[in-house]
Amino acid sequence: MSIRRQFTRCSRSASTNVRVSLPAVCFVWQIAMIVLFGVFIRYNEEADTHWQEFRRENNISSDIENDFYFRYPSFQDVHVMIFVGFGFLMTFLKRYSFGAVGFNFLVAAFGIQWALLMQGWFHTLDPATGKILIGVENLINADFCVAGCLIAYGALLGKVSPVQLLVLTLFGVTLFAVEEYIILDLLHARDAGGSMVIHAFGGYYGLAISWVLYRPNLNLSKRLNGSVYHSDVFAMIGTLFLWMFWPSFNSAITDHGDGQHRAAINTYLALASSVLTAVGISSVTQKKGKLDMVHIQNATLAGGVAMGTAAEFMITPYGSLIVGFCCGIISTFGYVFVTPLLEKYLKLQDTCGVHNLHAVPGMLGGFIGAIVAASATEEVYSREGLINTFDFEGDFADRTVGTQGGFQAAACCVAIAFGIVGGGCVGLVLKIPIWGDPADDNCYDDEAYWEVPEDDESIPPILEYNNHMIHKLPDL
Amino acid sequence: MSIRRQFTRCSRSASTNVRVSLPAVCFVWQIAMIVLFGVFIRYNEEADTHWQEFRRENNISSDIENDFYFRYPSFQDVHVMIFVGFGFLMTFLKRYSFGAVGFNFLVAAFGIQWALLMQGWFHTLDPATGKILIGVENLINADFCVAGCLIAYGALLGKVSPVQLLVLTLFGVTLFAVEEYIILDLLHARDAGGSMVIHAFGGYYGLAISWVLYRPNLNLSKRLNGSVYHSDVFAMIGTLFLWMFWPSFNSAITDHGDGQHRAAINTYLALASSVLTAVGISSVTQKKGKLDMVHIQNATLAGGVAMGTAAEFMITPYGSLIVGFCCGIISTFGYVFVTPLLEKYLKLQDTCGVHNLHAVPGMLGGFIGAIVAASATEEVYSREGLINTFDFEGDFADRTVGTQGGFQAAACCVAIAFGIVGGGCVGLVLKIPIWGDPADDNCYDDEAYWEVPEDDESIPPILEYNNHMIHKLPDL
Amino acid sequence: MSIRRQFTRCSRSASTNVRVSLPAVCFVWQIAMIVLFGVFIRYNEEADTHWQEFRRENNISSDIENDFYFRYPSFQDVHVMIFVGFGFLMTFLKRYSFGAVGFNFLVAAFGIQWALLMQGWFHTLDPATGKILIGVENLINADFCVAGCLIAYGALLGKVSPVQLLVLTLFGVTLFAVEEYIILDLLHARDAGGSMVIHAFGGYYGLAISWVLYRPNLNLSKRLNGSVYHSDVFAMIGTLFLWMFWPSFNSAITDHGDGQHRAAINTYLALASSVLTAVGISSVTQKKGKLDMVHIQNATLAGGVAMGTAAEFMITPYGSLIVGFCCGIISTFGYVFVTPLLEKYLKLQDTCGVHNLHAVPGMLGGFIGAIVAASATEEVYSREGLINTFDFEGDFADRTVGTQGGFQAAACCVAIAFGIVGGGCVGLVLKIPIWGDPADDNCYDDEAYWEVPEDDESIPPILEYNNHMIHKLPDL
Repeated sequence: MSIRRQFTRCSRSASTNVRVSLPAVCFVWQIAMIVLFGVFIRYNEEADTHWQEFRRENNISSDIENDFYFRYPSFQDVHVMIFVGFGFLMTFLKRYSFGAVGFNFLVAAFGIQWALLMQGWFHTLDPATGKILIGVENLINADFCVAGCLIAYGALLGKVSPVQLLVLTLFGVTLFAVEEYIILDLLHARDAGGSMVIHAFGGYYGLAISWVLYRPNLNLSKRLNGSVYHSDVFAMIGTLFLWMFWPSFNSAITDHGDGQHRAAINTYLALASSVLTAVGISSVTQKKGKLDMVHIQNATLAGGVAMGTAAEFMITPYGSLIVGFCCGIISTFGYVFVTPLLEKYLKLQDTCGVHNLHAVPGMLGGFIGAIVAASATEEVYSREGLINTFDFEGDFADRTVGTQGGFQAAACCVAIAFGIVGGGCVGLVLKIPIWGDPADDNCYDDEAYWEVPEDDESIPPILEYNNHMIHKLPDL
Repeated sequence: MSIRRQFTRCSRSASTNVRVSLPAVCFVWQIAMIVLFGVFIRYNEEADTHWQEFRRENNISSDIENDFYFRYPSFQDVHVMIFVGFGFLMTFLKRYSFGAVGFNFLVAAFGIQWALLMQGWFHTLDPATGKILIGVENLINADFCVAGCLIAYGALLGKVSPVQLLVLTLFGVTLFAVEEYIILDLLHARDAGGSMVIHAFGGYYGLAISWVLYRPNLNLSKRLNGSVYHSDVFAMIGTLFLWMFWPSFNSAITDHGDGQHRAAINTYLALASSVLTAVGISSVTQKKGKLDMVHIQNATLAGGVAMGTAAEFMITPYGSLIVGFCCGIISTFGYVFVTPLLEKYLKLQDTCGVHNLHAVPGMLGGFIGAIVAASATEEVYSREGLINTFDFEGDFADRTVGTQGGFQAAACCVAIAFGIVGGGCVGLVLKIPIWGDPADDNCYDDEAYWEVPEDDESIPPILEYNNHMIHKLPDL
Repeated sequence: MSIRRQFTRCSRSASTNVRVSLPAVCFVWQIAMIVLFGVFIRYNEEADTHWQEFRRENNISSDIENDFYFRYPSFQDVHVMIFVGFGFLMTFLKRYSFGAVGFNFLVAAFGIQWALLMQGWFHTLDPATGKILIGVENLINADFCVAGCLIAYGALLGKVSPVQLLVLTLFGVTLFAVEEYIILDLLHARDAGGSMVIHAFGGYYGLAISWVLYRPNLNLSKRLNGSVYHSDVFAMIGTLFLWMFWPSFNSAITDHGDGQHRAAINTYLALASSVLTAVGISSVTQKKGKLDMVHIQNATLAGGVAMGTAAEFMITPYGSLIVGFCCGIISTFGYVFVTPLLEKYLKLQDTCGVHNLHAVPGMLGGFIGAIVAASATEEVYSREGLINTFDFEGDFADRTVGTQGGFQAAACCVAIAFGIVGGGCVGLVLKIPIWGDPADDNCYDDEAYWEVPEDDESIPPILEYNNHMIHKLPDL
């Protein structure tokens, strides 16, 4: 092992050394965050010590009506999805688990800060004071924003340096905030669980970057582009926490009361349905009907992605099941057939298959949302329910459901366009050879950026049989 | 490795090939779910867009009084128990972690859909419209219902095919809904955490199936019926999430306010007490006082199982400790002494020891509930508290606590009878040689139903020392 | 393997046999808990069946205002931190994962019971009835109290027996309750997230014990004092659950409404900031900029520790970022430079580096809290907000913020003094050679206290190629 490590050190020293760039980026950006937070960010009235006065002024009868109690449990579930869900889902590679869970952690920790600022400037900047007032809903939105960048990381897993990931996140969060502003505010589309804003954008953003960063000789690292038994079990931790908490993800920022309640039910059902079709397709496309862990780890989640827009609508329970049914099939087929074709013909290397789990189901989710919105009726929703659900108030009081459906569809196109164009540009930036990315024969390997412990097996076996010898051996 | 795999493929090809049956069952049943949901299932008034009208009509002062906010945090905890708790608890086998966590996932995802229908028909079918109206409480109940089948899976772990598990779940959920109807509605017994309805039923259901499916030559697979170091650590993830969230399990559907509060406290205490006695017995029954991971992974949970019925009663904090104390002892003794005897004399092969963790503590929990109910007094509960706790209203307004205790005991017998008789019948169905179950020398092995990755160790060691050689080697 | 095991058994048989002491302690103490609970502990009015009467008497309009709904989601998050967070964080050693997660489980399960009693006697004993009335807030406080002992375990990991850990917990919880009473009640300091009460106390308590138990020949066990690849991934489960749920930890027992809301936001921000500086320092201090898992697993959490006191104050969002920024740096530097020096010059063996994660950041957190309290103004807090936040009521109605700052600083010194002096005394108790602790060349090894399964690799390779041979081989 030590020989290999020395060898690695010699031949790659120039490429993956981030001893200057990584600390520099971490420190400079973190200091910038502190300065910008100092200038712009304050607590909102529900997190400020003036809350008791605010309560009296607004006739709020109890502390329990603080938004904290409506949203905090969902926030924590979303938080788990971002850090454990996405992080562990990517640990499936045999020697990239540190990078998967560690860089996911780094990227998300930076991204949530930058997202609070970017989303604040676009959505909640108080024009009178010039301050952004934050509360629990902003924390959820920051987590959502980061999810887009983590999805993009999935396409690039094992092929980029942590500095590149931070750059990807800086631009990704910025693009996210702009497209979110266009979609939610200008187009007035609804997208509570982010099929379009998060998944379609994040998926295409990652794919476009990966396309620009195409590595023709990536098969030199093929020995490490696969799983081992226990790394697949680790990845199931990620899968399950994503799957279980997706109802919280899609309902976290929907309307109080029936909105949150309905979004959770719909997502729960779509996810259950996805599992069965993912298993079915996985079995039927493999020799002897054996299941492939890749499909179980990923395609089972497609129903949650695809319900991101429509979960808060009256899509009906069986409608949710149908969405999950179809997306489980499409996603699994994507892993079996489309990913190899994309790599062969489009030169698109997509480590985690985000095309099949996020890009396509996200896009479908956007269009499903458009159809469900366009077919909404006062009979089903009630007049008041229609207004609440689609927020037909203020400037949008006269909008019809048909128009809303059109804007939803347009919003989905905006998300995809932002992902592809933005990803292309960011890919060009990341192609500059200054970021310390690994060589083609050094991908998917934690050795590049981590102090990796010696393997258990490397304990000289003699130690096992003769404890007296230990004292004379040099330190391991 | 590859030779072994080829060999396995040759000799077992007929038996474990589920390439037709598994996809067929997944697709047909999922389509059936969609159709039945289309006919029967709608949102209830708290998840429907008419919620605002419902609020006004019922003088509900705030959105926070939507049942979602009373139950959703508990629901998510229960959800984690079902998918991560049960799934990872069963990953302890050295080569069956994929099957443990993956089939658990499949079974639960199907089961919750079928449970929503079955429980809906029996409990919440609106006679006027013929619809089942669902909300968050139904989702919790569906998770509960599935728990019964997952417990049964524990007895069969490694010995059945995924198709058999789906059949087991189809019948298990059906039986569950019927026994639950008899116990909760006809006998009017209380069983909020399901000592009887879930654990006693599920445990005996699994044991009865396992008894019918007895494999005389199972010791041919003995090499795989054990753990390795890291698989035991994975299993602790399951144990701990079950242990931590059990207070949510037992309180999830109890009365708003004091009911949920008290059930959580009682369960928390019983579980803490179980840990100490499980550790004590584990140490005293092993050579040199060493602890056995099997006991720590399982018997520590016995207090939670046994508090399923009585948690919402005024069992008192020390009463809860006593329950945990006794059940920790009984469960650990079960693992040490009873399971080997059951296998030897009753021909009962119980992979996870559900007899000791679910069947017996569940049965005890039912009788503890009966005793606590029978000894309830107006002095302790207050008149109003007694009525609320035991729901002495409507047809049951005149019931005394003594009578209630009798019905509780009868309910426990019903649950056990349903488990044993139902499990016997389902076992006969599963014995039909069409389900693709593994041969006796092929049990506890993920190779049968999963594409298992090559081991890390199979990377030719030469690669470690000479990177140039990689290019000339064939793809791994 | 078997030879090694036999050897181990022969030479250490006397020392680590806990077959009498461990069960004795478990049973006697658990029985004592039952008796003491029987005498002292009852449900409080929010968990009792008299809740409906209590509601009417106190004009509480809805069940949702039961404290259960304010605190239960936070309680469950804290519970996960205690059992999975601390437990898995310590699994990083290659052969001590069972001990890490298993003894953590045992200690916490005993500790929470003893803490309910000790904290009850000091804080909530009803003088009229002599009873301790418990509810969800007491459960959270019990978990907090145990956290102090688990932190101390971190310094001793791999070097003590389970019996010693239980003794450590018995005394630790007692000391905790006393120092907590002095700090919160007598000094009237605020410390909602326990920077002082939990982390500074627990850290110095563990360090003092470790100092007394110094093992000059501990390098005989050096071969096991390190991680392997997958044990580091397991440890990240602990890290992430601690990191994600720390906002719940620091807000769990703060004031309803804005208090909980603000504490969660501040902690979330400080933690994010810690991650970036921990990564930066880790990279810059290692050869070639490679990250060290030890730093990522631990120093990323320093921001949460340091916000334990000030999280509920108006420290401002950028103030929180600054705290996290500084503590991430200090903690990582501690791992790189201070821990080796402490071992070399102070003879202080600190397995998990609790000095850098808990003792120092906790102490800093205490002083940060003092400064923030002293600089509070009516302009920022509002008069009412100041009274609510610092609880300037009753005997303390006339206290100024300056005085409060002084008492906060004094409180921090009390916590440290209790840790050091208490730990010194408990260390002397644990030095008595009756507790079954391992010999110097037998530390960090699960073999001492656990039935450890044979390794996967120990399956004779011939089995892999010829299934027929299995039948003739003896049982593994």
